[in-house]
Amino acid sequence: MSQLYASLFYQKEVTEIFSDRTLVSYMVEAEVALAQAQAQVGVIPQSAADVIERTAKTALEHIDFDALATATGLAGNIAIPFVKQLTAIVKQADEDAARYVHWGATSQDILDTACILQCRAALAIVQNQVQQCYDTALSQAQSYRYQVMMGRTWLQQALPITLGHKLARWASAFKRDLDRIDAMKARVLTAQLGGAVGSLASLQNQGSMVVDAFAHQLQLNAAACTWHGERDRIVEIASVLGMITGSVGKMARDWSLMMQTEIAEVFEPTATGRGGSSTMPHKRNPVAAASVLAAANRVPALMSSIYQSMVQEHERGLGSWHAEWLCLPEIFQLTAGALERTLDVLQGMEVHADNMQRNIECTHGLVMAEAVMMALAPHMGRLNAHHVVEAACKKAVAEQTHLKDVISNIEDVKQYFNASQLDEIFKPESYLGNIQDQIDAVLQEAKGVAK
Amino acid sequence: MSQLYASLFYQKEVTEIFSDRTLVSYMVEAEVALAQAQAQVGVIPQSAADVIERTAKTALEHIDFDALATATGLAGNIAIPFVKQLTAIVKQADEDAARYVHWGATSQDILDTACILQCRAALAIVQNQVQQCYDTALSQAQSYRYQVMMGRTWLQQALPITLGHKLARWASAFKRDLDRIDAMKARVLTAQLGGAVGSLASLQNQGSMVVDAFAHQLQLNAAACTWHGERDRIVEIASVLGMITGSVGKMARDWSLMMQTEIAEVFEPTATGRGGSSTMPHKRNPVAAASVLAAANRVPALMSSIYQSMVQEHERGLGSWHAEWLCLPEIFQLTAGALERTLDVLQGMEVHADNMQRNIECTHGLVMAEAVMMALAPHMGRLNAHHVVEAACKKAVAEQTHLKDVISNIEDVKQYFNASQLDEIFKPESYLGNIQDQIDAVLQEAKGVAK
Amino acid sequence: MSQLYASLFYQKEVTEIFSDRTLVSYMVEAEVALAQAQAQVGVIPQSAADVIERTAKTALEHIDFDALATATGLAGNIAIPFVKQLTAIVKQADEDAARYVHWGATSQDILDTACILQCRAALAIVQNQVQQCYDTALSQAQSYRYQVMMGRTWLQQALPITLGHKLARWASAFKRDLDRIDAMKARVLTAQLGGAVGSLASLQNQGSMVVDAFAHQLQLNAAACTWHGERDRIVEIASVLGMITGSVGKMARDWSLMMQTEIAEVFEPTATGRGGSSTMPHKRNPVAAASVLAAANRVPALMSSIYQSMVQEHERGLGSWHAEWLCLPEIFQLTAGALERTLDVLQGMEVHADNMQRNIECTHGLVMAEAVMMALAPHMGRLNAHHVVEAACKKAVAEQTHLKDVISNIEDVKQYFNASQLDEIFKPESYLGNIQDQIDAVLQEAKGVAK
Amino acid sequence: MSQLYASLFYQKEVTEIFSDRTLVSYMVEAEVALAQAQAQVGVIPQSAADVIERTAKTALEHIDFDALATATGLAGNIAIPFVKQLTAIVKQADEDAARYVHWGATSQDILDTACILQCRAALAIVQNQVQQCYDTALSQAQSYRYQVMMGRTWLQQALPITLGHKLARWASAFKRDLDRIDAMKARVLTAQLGGAVGSLASLQNQGSMVVDAFAHQLQLNAAACTWHGERDRIVEIASVLGMITGSVGKMARDWSLMMQTEIAEVFEPTATGRGGSSTMPHKRNPVAAASVLAAANRVPALMSSIYQSMVQEHERGLGSWHAEWLCLPEIFQLTAGALERTLDVLQGMEVHADNMQRNIECTHGLVMAEAVMMALAPHMGRLNAHHVVEAACKKAVAEQTHLKDVISNIEDVKQYFNASQLDEIFKPESYLGNIQDQIDAVLQEAKGVAK
Repeated sequence: MSQLYASLFYQKEVTEIFSDRTLVSYMVEAEVALAQAQAQVGVIPQSAADVIERTAKTALEHIDFDALATATGLAGNIAIPFVKQLTAIVKQADEDAARYVHWGATSQDILDTACILQCRAALAIVQNQVQQCYDTALSQAQSYRYQVMMGRTWLQQALPITLGHKLARWASAFKRDLDRIDAMKARVLTAQLGGAVGSLASLQNQGSMVVDAFAHQLQLNAAACTWHGERDRIVEIASVLGMITGSVGKMARDWSLMMQTEIAEVFEPTATGRGGSSTMPHKRNPVAAASVLAAANRVPALMSSIYQSMVQEHERGLGSWHAEWLCLPEIFQLTAGALERTLDVLQGMEVHADNMQRNIECTHGLVMAEAVMMALAPHMGRLNAHHVVEAACKKAVAEQTHLKDVISNIEDVKQYFNASQLDEIFKPESYLGNIQDQIDAVLQEAKGVAK
Repeated sequence: MSQLYASLFYQKEVTEIFSDRTLVSYMVEAEVALAQAQAQVGVIPQSAADVIERTAKTALEHIDFDALATATGLAGNIAIPFVKQLTAIVKQADEDAARYVHWGATSQDILDTACILQCRAALAIVQNQVQQCYDTALSQAQSYRYQVMMGRTWLQQALPITLGHKLARWASAFKRDLDRIDAMKARVLTAQLGGAVGSLASLQNQGSMVVDAFAHQLQLNAAACTWHGERDRIVEIASVLGMITGSVGKMARDWSLMMQTEIAEVFEPTATGRGGSSTMPHKRNPVAAASVLAAANRVPALMSSIYQSMVQEHERGLGSWHAEWLCLPEIFQLTAGALERTLDVLQGMEVHADNMQRNIECTHGLVMAEAVMMALAPHMGRLNAHHVVEAACKKAVAEQTHLKDVISNIEDVKQYFNASQLDEIFKPESYLGNIQDQIDAVLQEAKGVAK
Repeated sequence: MSQLYASLFYQKEVTEIFSDRTLVSYMVEAEVALAQAQAQVGVIPQSAADVIERTAKTALEHIDFDALATATGLAGNIAIPFVKQLTAIVKQADEDAARYVHWGATSQDILDTACILQCRAALAIVQNQVQQCYDTALSQAQSYRYQVMMGRTWLQQALPITLGHKLARWASAFKRDLDRIDAMKARVLTAQLGGAVGSLASLQNQGSMVVDAFAHQLQLNAAACTWHGERDRIVEIASVLGMITGSVGKMARDWSLMMQTEIAEVFEPTATGRGGSSTMPHKRNPVAAASVLAAANRVPALMSSIYQSMVQEHERGLGSWHAEWLCLPEIFQLTAGALERTLDVLQGMEVHADNMQRNIECTHGLVMAEAVMMALAPHMGRLNAHHVVEAACKKAVAEQTHLKDVISNIEDVKQYFNASQLDEIFKPESYLGNIQDQIDAVLQEAKGVAK
Repeated sequence: MSQLYASLFYQKEVTEIFSDRTLVSYMVEAEVALAQAQAQVGVIPQSAADVIERTAKTALEHIDFDALATATGLAGNIAIPFVKQLTAIVKQADEDAARYVHWGATSQDILDTACILQCRAALAIVQNQVQQCYDTALSQAQSYRYQVMMGRTWLQQALPITLGHKLARWASAFKRDLDRIDAMKARVLTAQLGGAVGSLASLQNQGSMVVDAFAHQLQLNAAACTWHGERDRIVEIASVLGMITGSVGKMARDWSLMMQTEIAEVFEPTATGRGGSSTMPHKRNPVAAASVLAAANRVPALMSSIYQSMVQEHERGLGSWHAEWLCLPEIFQLTAGALERTLDVLQGMEVHADNMQRNIECTHGLVMAEAVMMALAPHMGRLNAHHVVEAACKKAVAEQTHLKDVISNIEDVKQYFNASQLDEIFKPESYLGNIQDQIDAVLQEAKGVAK
């Protein structure tokens, strides 16, 4: 991945977690936990485990990453040459202890466990980001709960809503994402330890005890059985990230559409160097939206890869497991990047209430036709009201006048409503249905009050 | 979808649920629930709701599906022409009641709710299928818990496992899928009712009460807010199906590899007309595997579509919502079809223990090298044992003899082990690590005993 | 596939080509060609071939499609039970001839060749559709070559273009698609005939002659070697369709954005039952765009499937080949459907020149800032001009006045330009660069004049 | 992208081309070409162009890549901050010349043109790789044209083929890929120059001349019109790479299956550190295959992204264009990596003729049943021969004897064939059909002789 694009598409901490260096540090952590777990169960000497742990503390400084990269190309994974280097490093401290490095384990044990450690760390960041987005969306939903604007469907103006309603719906999506993250943690954050074929054969009757101790060392769950070839945990993690990215992609689409020059209702916050143009002074590029939408294009395709990679052969697969290594970090990084930009916009969005009002008016009252019909219906029957309003709309369009002017000149209408009553009927805020109830429900949900 | 391929790729009940006819029947159900909910709240007369309900019972017989199809092309969705037809049908019974059909609702309310009803019905079938697969895998894991076979990694023989261990791992994946289905139900099985922009504007202050009554009528949950444009629920349903299909795809890959002529360890059950060839009498095509693997190719790409379709514009989107209509039914049908075939194979698989034994022997004992080394290690030290066994392996390969013959002639070895002890060491069942513990853990998990 | 959605997403003739009935008719055609080719080479008696050909003419009436569907589920493909049925049908006419049905061929020979025949037929329709789109886009590019409108980048107004330029660019994309279709035909429209493993073993030394005669019968090319497992031809066909759908997806996005209520520049043609709303009289749903955009969501994911399905095992694969059967027809149908709707819109689009003008004006002249700067530069230097215009823009925004009013009051400007000259500079049609040259180049290209 | 994985999945030169540094160097090249083109046409002073060109030579040393990365996150693309830095660099040499840097161009002009320059360079490498693969596959097809082995379909042994036939089919796929690369070059390798909205407005009537000169400078084609929003060229490049990766993915699947311990027919070349295991001495991991198969999983999903990204808004899009930046380099790198590993294997593959022979024998003659039937048919009629052989097969299976032993004891057979004739019939090399013709056709094709 280009460094140049990292600041545009990624999020710093999560990118760091998936860096080569941090990956290797998690592999070291897994090897230490393995040694300590085996010492605890009595498989290897405690002294060896202690040497391994002590040496591991500075192991990263001694790892030759270039040699590691070269050897990885031949070995087919990072763990094989990594274990060689780590063993050599331990050997310099204690030749005997070195014999117990990676005891009984297979490459995939270390890589999968390191991957789960990365996921736990990155998931914590993502969860925090989603929480912040949720809190912000809730707070903005409250701030703008009465701010009327046009609701749009099929990219057409439909009926009025409030900006707060839109934000409450977004908040509600973040809530579900938080629930999903919580729901899956116990299931997915499990250690992997099975040896070559998942049997921990060389540990003989001590395997299960070591697995438990290993998981406990890392504060991960121990799975009922090895999962070298059953990859649904990895996919489940990705699937929640995919939903998050899809949700913020939807938001970015919305705000970029609202930023259109002709609409100009909501803008990304300004910052020096962001989205302006010296020769086109009216331009305000939705830079954050571009980045989020790029993620929302990329992540679904990465999901395709990761679902596809579930088809792994026998006890440990060929190629599909490798594909995961490329996919999962990218999904995490794009999701965290998209969340970062979304949070920025949620926090700093500029709302142009005047343009919202102007846009409501741009059909000269036609968007309020249904409201007028509903107001007339109790007086003249729904069918009749429908005919009257339909005719009035045609007239308004033909004569390019405001619907209210047409309506207010209809004798049938005059007998029920005076001018100020009609003004009231034509106010978008009079026709918002249960929007306030919905906003309240979303706010209540945040307080743990189920609907 | 071709009818010819339906029997190869799909499952009958689920296909029926996503047929045009059943979709429309769910739309009718949604309209009836809407009318009754509104009558209950006092929005429309109870008599009108009753006429609508009564008429709806036979509505399907009166729907002109050809006209519906033609009109759908113009209207852009099924609901618009459907409501017209339904209204006309009700009108024949009672002109007044007809005015209350679809009162206050938008097309998407009916289509989304019908979709959720389809999902609930199809999910019940899928859940039942997964449960049957789980039960069968558990039972087969018990039956074959001591049946040794080669474990394979990177498509290479590695160390021995038992078939029961493989099946226990598969069972464990089904367990997680069942947990996922359970975990998401409350979140995803929600009614949709929001009117044009999600505000139920025309119901004024009665909107939320109607939503609750509507959901209650259908025994669905009521969402805190409308979700016309926030599609994560749909994607979550699909994501669990995607994981299920990936898991059974992995199993199909495994059993098709085990069915290879040269390996011949496990076979799909025989049936007349299935997979044989008259001029190639040795052939036994893994027909079920082909079908499951096709699903495991197709579903991940459909997942890409459905994640992508989350980016919907404003209050109700354009195009992306439409894409869901094509994706979700296909994902459900392929998943159910894949499960059906997997269950067949799990139940009826033929296990060739003799070939498993033959394959274990095909490296002339090399696969037991690690076991021998572990047996020698306590006597001669691990490093020494390693050297001895390594040299023996080279000799066995060079002289094309069995490793046991080489080993048993080494003086150093003879002093520790006699012939019958060496026989024991070379038995694959002596080198299975904690496999039985893992099988037990999976069986316990099924009884609700967490590890 | 739902019949209800067919009229919304598909195109009739192409859907017909991929119907079960037509697929089987192409399989019959392949079997007849095989028999005649073998008779010609002397592999089977001419009389047998003639009986097969004669019987085949009415074979479709005798095929039991329900039995075929059931048997397909067991056999794993359509061809096996189809050949049985066809043989039985021929047997009723002539027992001897029946023995020569499908002589020496494998299921995949017939299915692949039938698939290529479907592709040839469907490609002819698609090619014709693209040609019509191209012709229409060219003609509209000419019609609207001087119709100024805002060019937009990042969803923001940028500088003026003409509608004709947009249409010329679209036309140019269609031209490239036509070139691609032409370029691949010879490569991809090849017959498949190889028998079980591609060797045509049972035909002994007559295999290659039969392949040539077979291809000739069907007016397909003969490949240098069998391609049962090398699927790039299928993928190449799909890839061109994928590009076409992407291109029209781009167009649909554009016109749906231009149809937004606030922008209202270009509209899909009206038709009864299309996109209107009785209670929201201002709405004009871009129904065609929704359909095209759904295809543009779906087809890329199908492309993922079809690229993925190239990984087929050995001489004839397992599962991936099956996946093709589900993908390719869907890609063809969605592409043809998207083209049909795009052609409709290209032919009947309503252009609202007044709204284009209004939108140009909505920034009060700011979109012409660069034009003004370029006009001033020769007189006062580019840097100076830049400063003057930048200051004027700020002033115009702050005072909410038109940029021209600000500019025309600047002394430095007055000395170079009078009011009518400034009017000219502020006209968007004065600042269109080489747009007319580009339109001409595209028109010339259509006449075969390369740039 | 991890450096650790680069040596496993990528190819060095192509990765270098898509590095940040090289991307920027192509951007510099594009800016120089722009300046020189404009000087040539008379838009800017030749002296300015010369300064820009001269300064550009060492520009890379002065670019602050960290600052560039930071600014890119705000600006939304690399070009905006890049132009600022380049201008500053030129300014240090000549303040006046600096004013003409990037004259009249938009960010996308430079980024798209640089992208096409990257594609041209990378495509040359890929083409060369494919050519080498083609040459090697042809040469190996010749070497192994008579090497019999089992052909396999549905993962089952079917009939014999030769390894040369398999290689000839692979060669043929490479030939088509070479044709595709050739066919598209003129269409896709085009310069991009259009200014903000594709009109080159600020160049007034000189735009088209500058475009031609610009393209000529870079030895790229000039397009009839700008293609900022019409991305089919980018997708076409990717689509050919996608087909290449799919083809080598198929090969990797094949050779990894042939490397299975029980099959052991073809092996990846050995190298120190590649795929071995000290404790599992029989293991020989198909490391190259794992890498190629990972690419064949990843690239199809990336194709989904890139097709999806064609839906770009108006004159220059939002988000989808950005998604390209992440996809296309990854597709190129994975394709080149997969080709490198495939070439390695094609060149160095170890062929175990003895195991091929052993595997042919593993069904005890059953795989030759069809051959026997074809030999008997002329003597006893096809139907009768079929019955005789079918019965013999059943007997052979039941009695676990070799089919030849059963056949040779049948009286009806004895009268036509003696023992040595039966030996001949049972030889796999007697039943290879037109395989040698096909190999010749592929070899001829390579010499430009069309079939």
